[in-house]
Amino acid sequence: MFSYHPPVKHMRYVLNDVLSATARLRQEAGFADLDAELVQQVLEEAGRFTSEVLFPLNASGDKQGCRFENGVVTTPDGYADAYRQFHEAGWASLSCDPDDGGQGLPQVLNCALEEMMVSANHAWTMYPGLLHGAYTCLRAHGSEALKQAYLPKLVSGEWLATMCLTEPQAGSDVGLLRTRAEPDGEQAYRISGSKIFISGGEHDLTDNIIHLVLARIPGAPEGSKGISLFLVPKIGPDGARNRIVCTGIEHKLGIRGSATCSLDFDGATGWLVGEPHRGLAAMFVMMNAARMLAGAQGIGIAEAAWQNAERYAQERLQMKAVCRPPERQSAAADPIALHPPVQRLLATQRCYVQGGRMLLYWSGLLLDLAHASADAARRQQLEQLLALVTPVVKAFLTQKAFDGASNALQVYGGYGVITETGIEQYLRDVRVTMIYEGTNEIQAIDLVLRKILADQGRTLPMLLDEVRHTAQDEADGPLAGHSCLLLSLTRELAAVADALHGAARARPELPHWIAGDIVKLLGHCLIGWMWLRSARVSIRLHEQDPAFHAEQRASAQHYFTYVFAETQEALAVVRACLG
Amino acid sequence: MFSYHPPVKHMRYVLNDVLSATARLRQEAGFADLDAELVQQVLEEAGRFTSEVLFPLNASGDKQGCRFENGVVTTPDGYADAYRQFHEAGWASLSCDPDDGGQGLPQVLNCALEEMMVSANHAWTMYPGLLHGAYTCLRAHGSEALKQAYLPKLVSGEWLATMCLTEPQAGSDVGLLRTRAEPDGEQAYRISGSKIFISGGEHDLTDNIIHLVLARIPGAPEGSKGISLFLVPKIGPDGARNRIVCTGIEHKLGIRGSATCSLDFDGATGWLVGEPHRGLAAMFVMMNAARMLAGAQGIGIAEAAWQNAERYAQERLQMKAVCRPPERQSAAADPIALHPPVQRLLATQRCYVQGGRMLLYWSGLLLDLAHASADAARRQQLEQLLALVTPVVKAFLTQKAFDGASNALQVYGGYGVITETGIEQYLRDVRVTMIYEGTNEIQAIDLVLRKILADQGRTLPMLLDEVRHTAQDEADGPLAGHSCLLLSLTRELAAVADALHGAARARPELPHWIAGDIVKLLGHCLIGWMWLRSARVSIRLHEQDPAFHAEQRASAQHYFTYVFAETQEALAVVRACLG
Repeated sequence: MFSYHPPVKHMRYVLNDVLSATARLRQEAGFADLDAELVQQVLEEAGRFTSEVLFPLNASGDKQGCRFENGVVTTPDGYADAYRQFHEAGWASLSCDPDDGGQGLPQVLNCALEEMMVSANHAWTMYPGLLHGAYTCLRAHGSEALKQAYLPKLVSGEWLATMCLTEPQAGSDVGLLRTRAEPDGEQAYRISGSKIFISGGEHDLTDNIIHLVLARIPGAPEGSKGISLFLVPKIGPDGARNRIVCTGIEHKLGIRGSATCSLDFDGATGWLVGEPHRGLAAMFVMMNAARMLAGAQGIGIAEAAWQNAERYAQERLQMKAVCRPPERQSAAADPIALHPPVQRLLATQRCYVQGGRMLLYWSGLLLDLAHASADAARRQQLEQLLALVTPVVKAFLTQKAFDGASNALQVYGGYGVITETGIEQYLRDVRVTMIYEGTNEIQAIDLVLRKILADQGRTLPMLLDEVRHTAQDEADGPLAGHSCLLLSLTRELAAVADALHGAARARPELPHWIAGDIVKLLGHCLIGWMWLRSARVSIRLHEQDPAFHAEQRASAQHYFTYVFAETQEALAVVRACLG
Repeated sequence: MFSYHPPVKHMRYVLNDVLSATARLRQEAGFADLDAELVQQVLEEAGRFTSEVLFPLNASGDKQGCRFENGVVTTPDGYADAYRQFHEAGWASLSCDPDDGGQGLPQVLNCALEEMMVSANHAWTMYPGLLHGAYTCLRAHGSEALKQAYLPKLVSGEWLATMCLTEPQAGSDVGLLRTRAEPDGEQAYRISGSKIFISGGEHDLTDNIIHLVLARIPGAPEGSKGISLFLVPKIGPDGARNRIVCTGIEHKLGIRGSATCSLDFDGATGWLVGEPHRGLAAMFVMMNAARMLAGAQGIGIAEAAWQNAERYAQERLQMKAVCRPPERQSAAADPIALHPPVQRLLATQRCYVQGGRMLLYWSGLLLDLAHASADAARRQQLEQLLALVTPVVKAFLTQKAFDGASNALQVYGGYGVITETGIEQYLRDVRVTMIYEGTNEIQAIDLVLRKILADQGRTLPMLLDEVRHTAQDEADGPLAGHSCLLLSLTRELAAVADALHGAARARPELPHWIAGDIVKLLGHCLIGWMWLRSARVSIRLHEQDPAFHAEQRASAQHYFTYVFAETQEALAVVRACLG
């Protein structure tokens, strides 16, 4: 049967052992009460909620979809009740500041929660998906009055939030947007324009929806430097309906239970968030959270697809394996999990799911450490590191998740394309993660242009040094082979970054051509780093749980034998282009 | 607007110029009347039929799907009428033998027809998809009585045909099938059992459906050596309904207009095709046609998706290009087709679509030449060559088509996942081509185990010699770079094949682990060969159509710079495994 089993054991291993996140957060980031027991408690509770409440609505919500009638959106059966449970259990406030009414747990635990939620039900998770980003954005840029009025209900999850950027003519190019904001007395503005592709723009889960809307104030400069951010609630402070109408919802390939809305703002009342014309900077706080979330979505879907493919491969008997276990010598056929091509698909999937999880949680840890850092220079360093890896987390993990969903479907053979089997939904659901929150192509350009070339070569070398440091520690001994491959990649990446600076001056379009390859190279550098760290930890902890740790080392071996080779493709392209 | 424009010009270029197929078929294969004009006529007629009759039913058929009620299947509106036109225009008989009532045109033209049909409407094309395979199978293995009774109506397309292999417990492993065939008097058998995933197992397009069914005669050996093939008509020679009931149709990810049926045979009357227990050999005639068709389906979908993405990229204005054409210096944004990452996606898609088409038609040409060859040794050689490349055509082209459909969707950004846009249907439709007619993993194992290792090293070296021959001709001059890369790959492939023979004896599971990499290597060797041939021809013919031929050479350049690099990934894996 199709199912979702929260991978709590691996999550704990990553947090406590591979990343030492639990100890570091306690020691370096002021999470005084955080220990392995609390981590386990939170993960197990989250696992229960996601597998017992959200997962049962996954297939039914996909089948039913949302209903739209006269501006009203009805979510699939059970969605609203699941949201009530989410809200009442306090999941919305998990990593919000206690000063704001939050539970004060680290962001990295929120990553784990988000991953589980998406594994269980991607479409449903879209509704609270931007809640934490809206909280962070409002907290950083909202006026005191706005914070007092809206922060508590966003922290508790009593109200939900949206991010309103896209217009028909302004997608990736937000600078083309036309929505207007006319000043209307003290602090307030009248917002007019049409927004599309707004996830959760209208629904029946909460009484109010807080829209964060990008618009232009009259006289603002053209392009992206003339955009301001506004908070525009569905229901105003006076309790009256604001002038916002949902004009339709999209029929989509996937996440069909998520209402993707067109919204008409017809002189709706809104309030400025942050400085006039500095809306993109304010919105980017939210956007960065959304990009990390997209990475978490990738891991979530890939994990769920992999679990089911893994189980199916154990159950499905077809053909005799080349190497049959002695006890099966007389069977008519073997589990397809014993056939090398299936083994390879599944082992590769494990490498990306578990390796991607390590990378994702490491990024979440950076966020927590940066947030808590009292030292301004250290804080900036951590933030730059996070800014460097965010586009990789988004683009690399979502691409691999899509490939992974496709591979999991492949394991099911002909049954894979049958709706009732369940696996094809993951392929449909995950596809959009490569597009929204900035397409993967835009992530790649962000990485190369802004995070590598415009950075005067500070942050990438710092990251490569960290990777090199781990690799050099393992240059002798059982992990020497992995170490050697990883060291070689760090050298190649440093050389590529160097050559790119010169080449970009001569041919400005060149970095755009090979940006995708550099995402691949840095993605493998990071995932390879994580697998090396995991292998090292698994050697040390072997006796505690021999089977688990042997599996971790086997995955590292598989990764460096079969998966890491993708870097050779990317390097061949980059070398050919850099000449 | 979403559209399909049959790529007749490129098809003619491939047939007449790159492959010289038209001349060779006339000179070497007895197609005395075949010339460029006839080829053009057929392609243009096929283009008209597919774009005007089939394409308009593509989105509507997907939306409507098939209806199933009390054993009766109703196809989407317009399907039956389109089939009537297909039948009346004689498309079914295009490449059938004139002795059987066919038009006697070469198989390679049928490939082009099939490609266009799938571009226009993959789901619809599933109905006549196995017609030619059934014709070939019955022609080769049917008794005189069966041929007289069934061949004419299969040739004309008055009746359609199915291939009934799969049972719930017997998918890839056909040896596990349980359907029984009890002798019942002279020549006849009573067939009993359940078949699933039967494309077009029941429908309303034709009065009769001819099922080719695999089943076991009592006392037959176990496994795949005890399987016989039977012809089991829906309506028997007496005009009465045979004992076959359609028990349901599947809800699927894609090709929703194609009825994927479960059939119950309850003592249905059938007749043996070929020898008892030799059913798989007989069925394989049909299966090989189906594998070539799957490759054609890949090209068809990839072409259609690419065309639409290409046009959308010209129309959609977002962001200023790094290198702006002078006439656009004051525009607010440029067509996304000017942004390098989009250019790269589209150019890569062109490489696979047009390169894949050259490979597909070259395979079709092999079939025609083999068929016509009077010399037994030459015929065997051509058939072995075809047997070698068939799994590559199937697996490599369908994988690239899936990637290509995903990339085309990516070009559309957020609009890509919206049903009404139309592009997401290709992603859903094409996915199953990687599974049916033998999964791509099974193709890879077939290639490595049966076509390379079991062949005593005859056929692959013969193919590599042909490739090397072309490459050596271009070792100096403007194509020296491409030639050098291709020569290097032929050497690597030869070395891999050599090493594999030894390694397989020591570790029998090894070829299974790296079979997929060898598909990639041989796929690129063949596609690279084709692009080199095209570049060579385009230099020669440049003056005839400078823009077209410059584009061909630019595609070859793009292929060898950005696409061919995938071989480096596969080689890294293969080298690591072969040690």
